[in-house]
Parts: sequence; structure tokens; C-alpha cells
Amino acid sequence: MLCLTHPTDPSWATTATADLRALLADHAHCEMKAASNALSLATRWPATPRVARALVDLAEEELRHFRAVVDELERRAIPLGRPEVDVYAAELRKLAQAGCKKSPEASFVDRLLVGALIEARSCERFRLLADALAAQGDALASFYDELFASEARHYRTLLDLAIEVSGDEAAVRARLADLARAEGELARTLGQRASIHG
Amino acid sequence: MLCLTHPTDPSWATTATADLRALLADHAHCEMKAASNALSLATRWPATPRVARALVDLAEEELRHFRAVVDELERRAIPLGRPEVDVYAAELRKLAQAGCKKSPEASFVDRLLVGALIEARSCERFRLLADALAAQGDALASFYDELFASEARHYRTLLDLAIEVSGDEAAVRARLADLARAEGELARTLGQRASIHG
Repeated sequence: MLCLTHPTDPSWATTATADLRALLADHAHCEMKAASNALSLATRWPATPRVARALVDLAEEELRHFRAVVDELERRAIPLGRPEVDVYAAELRKLAQAGCKKSPEASFVDRLLVGALIEARSCERFRLLADALAAQGDALASFYDELFASEARHYRTLLDLAIEVSGDEAAVRARLADLARAEGELARTLGQRASIHG
Repeated sequence: MLCLTHPTDPSWATTATADLRALLADHAHCEMKAASNALSLATRWPATPRVARALVDLAEEELRHFRAVVDELERRAIPLGRPEVDVYAAELRKLAQAGCKKSPEASFVDRLLVGALIEARSCERFRLLADALAAQGDALASFYDELFASEARHYRTLLDLAIEVSGDEAAVRARLADLARAEGELARTLGQRASIHG
């Protein structure tokens, strides 16, 4: 799906829906982290106000999702709790940082592409969740069905921004393919926990 | 004004309006930093979803202001540029961190109060700016007049959240008075540059 090289094992959806409390709390933190990351990127590429604006728009949409997930938490009397260590995002960020002496532009493009990959993986997992929840007759299915579409859009937005900043679509797509292979390797070791990327 | 112990020297408004390019770019970064700080706080106090929501609302308003300032930058063909080192905010954050072994609650309350102080100082400076710009017949006066009111509201929001989290209004007001005295000392050394807090 999208640029992903390794599909999530379908058993992940069973694990995730078996502990919706943990999954929803983790999901709320993922939305907040996505918003914070978009803002952090917005201040790192100030040369083009259009790019900063697009990232702020993205952050605002992530915050709306955060609020929607917190609504679900409150409806179910689930505490938000503190965020767990996010091994998946940390490992991906290391990939983007690897091979130092990159130009500021190349580093920025890498961070956009890592963001795009995280959105792609969320998109794939929200699809699995929506299907598993629909099979269980859980009303939350439609919630994940809507979010699935948003994550696909966010993936596209971040990829388009990377292409705009780089100005070299072929190079960006080649780099995305490299990062996607590494993400696929990482994803092979994940999918055992009731968390969005864990 | 508000809780501030040391008024900004009125000559700051002359310095600031003499270099509106630098001032507006710095202002855009201030709004973004305020948004990022509110999000960072929202994930640090997850026990009360109401507090997280209020901080997300605040972040969203700061992002609307960021966009409004970027509109002004674009209208004037001023580049956003990278943010300068923010000595003022860094020093205030040190005050909040000082005296370690504070409970997580006390640290969180301190960070809210530092945020409230920054809003109070912005509020005071936006008032000075609005008046100086009005005297110069600059249309930007009404922009700062509106933002002045927002900063006053944000000050109140952060103070109210600190009181809500602590549950001890008298203790919070005493701590705010301590931090405000330290902020006043810091402000004595600032106000020489065309920046919102510099």
C-alpha cells in the first residue's frame, strides 16, 4: 500500500482490537506527535512560506484528530496516560539522520519522507483496524475508515512537499524507495503490540 | 500590566518599529514557539483531558496568529528566516527548572506560569507597538491591537490552568509573583532590539 514494502501481518489487527484501551491512548499520542513534528519542520524550512503554511495546515488537521481520539477516550473513560517510548519513529528518524554531512535541504527532505512513511504505515494500519472493527460490529470502524483516508492524504502532502523543496522528483522517489525498504525491515520486527506503530 | 513587575522602556517601541522587517519575522517565530510549547505541555499532563484540550485550543490559536503574521511578511516580501536564539524564553525556562526535586505537578505548574509570563510580556509589548504604529499612521496598528487582547486572554488561560492543576490558588499566585520578579529583572536587561522579547 502506498510506498510500503512490507505489509503488516494481519494478526496485528486482532492484537490491537483486543486491547482498544491501549490502542486508543497510543493513537492519541501519535496524532499529537505528528502535529508537533509538522510544527518542528515548519520552522526548519523558513525559505518558503508556502511550505511552512502547508505544514501548519497539516499540524492543525492532526490536532483535530487528536481531539477526536480524546473524545473517544473520554467516552470510554480511558485515561490518556503518558506516551510510551516510540521505537518505530525513533528508528526511522535515525535513518533520516544517517549519512551525515547532508545538505540542510537533503536533511529536510529526508525528514519529510520519514513523515510520509509514518503516514503511509498509519494509513495501512487504520485500514486493517477499520476492517477488523467492522467485522466485530464496532461503531469505531467508521472512525478509522475516515482517518484512513486522511493518512493517505497526509502521505501525499509530505511527499509533494519533499518534491517541491528538492525540485528533483526522480531523486526524491529514489530516496523514498530506499527509506521505504528500511522501514519495511523495521516493520518486520513490529506488529506485536496494541499500538499504532508498535 | 497583568503580573509584570518591570515595565518595558518605552524606547523599545521606537527601536522595534524602526525595523519592522526584523520585528515581524521574530514575531512569526514567537507564535510558532508558543504553539509548540502548548503542544509539548499538552502531552506532559495527560491525567486531565480537559487540560490537554485547553492547551491544544491555545496551540491552534497561536497557529492562526502565525499564519496572520506570515501573511504580513509575504505582503511586505520579507523572508521568514530561521529563528534567532531566544535568550528571554531560555532564561525563563531555567527559572522554572531551578530548584530540582520538584514534583511533576510543581514543574508542570511552573511551565504554565512561565508561559503565562511570556504572554503577559507579549501583551504589554503589543500594546506599545499598537500605540507607536497608530502614531505613525501605520495600518499594522490594528493588527497589534487585536493581538494585544489575545495575549491577555492567553495569559489568563495559562494562569487558570496552573490553578486548576495545582488546586491551590494562593500557592500558584505566590509562585507567579516570584517568577514575575525574576522576569522583571530579566526584562531590565532586554528591550534593546527589534524583537518581541529581546
